[in-house]
Amino acid sequence: MARRARASRSRQAAPVGAPASPYIQRILPFFDVLDDEQLTKLEAQVDWIFEDVGIAFRDDPEALELWRREGARIEGDIVRADAQWIRDLCAKAPRQFTQVARNPERSVVIGGTNQVFAPIYGAPFVRDLEGGRRYGDMDSFEKLVKLAYLHPNLHHTGLVICEPCDVPVSKRHLDMVLAHMTLSDKPHLGAITEMSRAQDSVDMAEILHGRDVMDNNCVIMGNVNTNSPLLVDKVVSEAIRVYCGRGQGIVVVPFILTGAMGPVSTAASVAQAMAEAMMACAYAQLVRPGAPFVLGNFLSSMSLKSGAPTFGMPEPVVSNYAIGQLARRAGLPLRCGGSLTASKTEDAQAAYESADSMHSTMLAGANFVLHAAGWLEGGLATGFEKLIMDADRLGSYQKVLGQGLDISDEAMARDAYGEVAPGGHFLGSAHTMRNYQDAFYEPKLSDSENVESWEEGGSKDMRTRAYDRWNQMLNEYEKPALDPAKEEELAAYVAKRKEQLPDAWY
Amino acid sequence: MARRARASRSRQAAPVGAPASPYIQRILPFFDVLDDEQLTKLEAQVDWIFEDVGIAFRDDPEALELWRREGARIEGDIVRADAQWIRDLCAKAPRQFTQVARNPERSVVIGGTNQVFAPIYGAPFVRDLEGGRRYGDMDSFEKLVKLAYLHPNLHHTGLVICEPCDVPVSKRHLDMVLAHMTLSDKPHLGAITEMSRAQDSVDMAEILHGRDVMDNNCVIMGNVNTNSPLLVDKVVSEAIRVYCGRGQGIVVVPFILTGAMGPVSTAASVAQAMAEAMMACAYAQLVRPGAPFVLGNFLSSMSLKSGAPTFGMPEPVVSNYAIGQLARRAGLPLRCGGSLTASKTEDAQAAYESADSMHSTMLAGANFVLHAAGWLEGGLATGFEKLIMDADRLGSYQKVLGQGLDISDEAMARDAYGEVAPGGHFLGSAHTMRNYQDAFYEPKLSDSENVESWEEGGSKDMRTRAYDRWNQMLNEYEKPALDPAKEEELAAYVAKRKEQLPDAWY
Repeated sequence: MARRARASRSRQAAPVGAPASPYIQRILPFFDVLDDEQLTKLEAQVDWIFEDVGIAFRDDPEALELWRREGARIEGDIVRADAQWIRDLCAKAPRQFTQVARNPERSVVIGGTNQVFAPIYGAPFVRDLEGGRRYGDMDSFEKLVKLAYLHPNLHHTGLVICEPCDVPVSKRHLDMVLAHMTLSDKPHLGAITEMSRAQDSVDMAEILHGRDVMDNNCVIMGNVNTNSPLLVDKVVSEAIRVYCGRGQGIVVVPFILTGAMGPVSTAASVAQAMAEAMMACAYAQLVRPGAPFVLGNFLSSMSLKSGAPTFGMPEPVVSNYAIGQLARRAGLPLRCGGSLTASKTEDAQAAYESADSMHSTMLAGANFVLHAAGWLEGGLATGFEKLIMDADRLGSYQKVLGQGLDISDEAMARDAYGEVAPGGHFLGSAHTMRNYQDAFYEPKLSDSENVESWEEGGSKDMRTRAYDRWNQMLNEYEKPALDPAKEEELAAYVAKRKEQLPDAWY
Repeated sequence: MARRARASRSRQAAPVGAPASPYIQRILPFFDVLDDEQLTKLEAQVDWIFEDVGIAFRDDPEALELWRREGARIEGDIVRADAQWIRDLCAKAPRQFTQVARNPERSVVIGGTNQVFAPIYGAPFVRDLEGGRRYGDMDSFEKLVKLAYLHPNLHHTGLVICEPCDVPVSKRHLDMVLAHMTLSDKPHLGAITEMSRAQDSVDMAEILHGRDVMDNNCVIMGNVNTNSPLLVDKVVSEAIRVYCGRGQGIVVVPFILTGAMGPVSTAASVAQAMAEAMMACAYAQLVRPGAPFVLGNFLSSMSLKSGAPTFGMPEPVVSNYAIGQLARRAGLPLRCGGSLTASKTEDAQAAYESADSMHSTMLAGANFVLHAAGWLEGGLATGFEKLIMDADRLGSYQKVLGQGLDISDEAMARDAYGEVAPGGHFLGSAHTMRNYQDAFYEPKLSDSENVESWEEGGSKDMRTRAYDRWNQMLNEYEKPALDPAKEEELAAYVAKRKEQLPDAWY
């Protein structure tokens, strides 16, 4: 299907120089790495987990009761079920869906040949060249949301771009959701850490978008991890009920450090990830048939020296390629990878690992890429410079995926060969004059000057240039327009809920 | 063919933990990005260049005479020929061949599903953390050859790992070839800058390998650039006569800065690169049918601000993918890309660009990768730390390509699920105990410690760790054994030729 879609689209490659799309419509074909034998064996393992191993749904009698009523086999809190039935349930989820943004020009399509990039999620620390490493706070949070909003290569702002640790945990979600809704008009996520926080997110989305829009569209999603191996705890099942129950989207992500939360082999961990996420998808479809669902994947390798997770390594690169193909066969939108690294600083290690992780994420066809920019320290810290450096590189991936290789007559440039002799140059040819302005991706942060000019400019490395750039971006930030009545209603909702909720710091 | 090869090999994935192969035997399938329409149009353009545009063979009447005698149409120094004839000539070149090393365990197979990594070639400057940026010299040259020899992820030592600028240009090739032959036992290249220098390289190879071995094997290759656009100057045609005339290999590389030496569109430049290299291949097959030939590709994009070449950008990433597929269809071994960057220093820019350039080179199936490690400044400087950092990452690519996804019963780890409860962990399972030692690629230079341990260790960034590592490697260097009679004969050859040649500095 992908190949057919591309074949028909390659004839009309995306016009170069068109304004950046709110999401990537992929023309480049998918990279299918698995042959029939591999597919058959991996899918048989997934089915074996559904039928024989089972997956626990813990501390949530309501979830177990639904599974029992619908015909699953329950033993303790372990759910086993006929594999074909689970696959049939997953087939009820849409292959692609639109997440509507409050600014309709920024709505994104998730699934199919579309790819959406969002920043880092969940880091307790932040780091920048001036302030060093410190706990995240609301001030950093708002700056980072503004930067994600401003950056043309980020299509979605995620949610926990850093943890605002100066706000009580019990109230933090309100400030975070409000910031995404008011400081940006790109699509974003809602909270999931507790059922009431998910509900607050959905209620605020209803204020922002209106009931009618929300009744008929996905306007917000939750992103939640299973408790691998083989455990879907109530945070997941409750988030599914809140989001999917309201017709909204959910991203469910098995976080598997291979060798710890999954067997020490990549193939087994890939199969386990598929099984956990598909079981959650099946549950979501029981809650509401047709609910938007994104199959998450987060497999990391491990250092044998320290037991710490490692990133950008060959095992997760291969698992990205593989799980892309498996997700397409399952007909489910995919989240995977991102610009991941274990480095503590914005050095070459951070960039090598992030690039290999993201290059494989891109080729995997990941439809929703959280952590596409900003990761440091295995996700413990959001880097201001790292966010801007990664995002600059995302522009390259955007062009690779969205334009592929243009073979229009104009691109074949036959007329230019009438003007240029052997050993000559094409710089002044009519074809070059007609096309040079849109021929090349122009990164903002890569320096291609010669060494003398670079030294005259102060020998700034990429990190220093990124620092300059994010500061300049914040100086130029303007809040996107929002109906004042809606903004007031949102603020009132937050104030009311903050009054109701106790201050809790963990 | 590739897919069949993989299908049969995936059943017996390379045993993990086996000693590093002298080259990569790829199991991962190729990434074919072009559909039939794109292939047809690109190949038609290549044929149009053969037949209508033509390619000049300049300042070399002997080359023109051979073309004329064999039936090409000559106009001035421009050669035009029937496209099918050129393709038939190219089909005489081997799809894969072995370059025999003086240590037979290090011989490499070039072509087919095999991939060989070699370091940077041609930089006049070197750079390291202690000594900064300076002209290359023989001392640096020898250190770099030793490092390339020692590094397990480099399979081939190339030739001009930096320019030894303290030796006259007229004699430099002798010292360089001698260093590769005596300080390393990996395969390497010979000189091409002048016909007599190519001949010296071939003559020295005959001393090293013996006439019999050389009569029946490729033991040395030259690597030479066309003078794009559309110009094969006598440096190329003479190098072909010297190397191929003696049954040795030649790598011919159109260096095309898109927009200058080729039209400003990627598709046209890809077609031009194919046409130039295939025309050189056809000439090589006229000189000696069956001569080992590697089709080179070096397409870079351009900064519109400075006109300088840029690297790791979307246009060369796509051209790598595309040219891989075209080379396989032409049945010719391919050289492309490498770890390329325009950065002046070993910063995140250098690593992002190098990783994206190398990731696409890897996926393109490039059979011989010059510049796989050490590039800085668009190839003007060889970085000691950069060489070691890039090479560390090559180990990851080696595993991705060479192991793919193992789906043996052991990899599926079903027994482990009998030991681990939902929410538990696999760390102590029997399957983990049996497999953990070979489960993960262990990079030498990526730090995955937590931030506290990293700070205690001095907060070293990757560049600093690379500096420590290459110094340690040089301390541990031992010269590989070589028959003293051969070493003496080589030294005598170099001494004699140095006496005969004038000192020329340009």
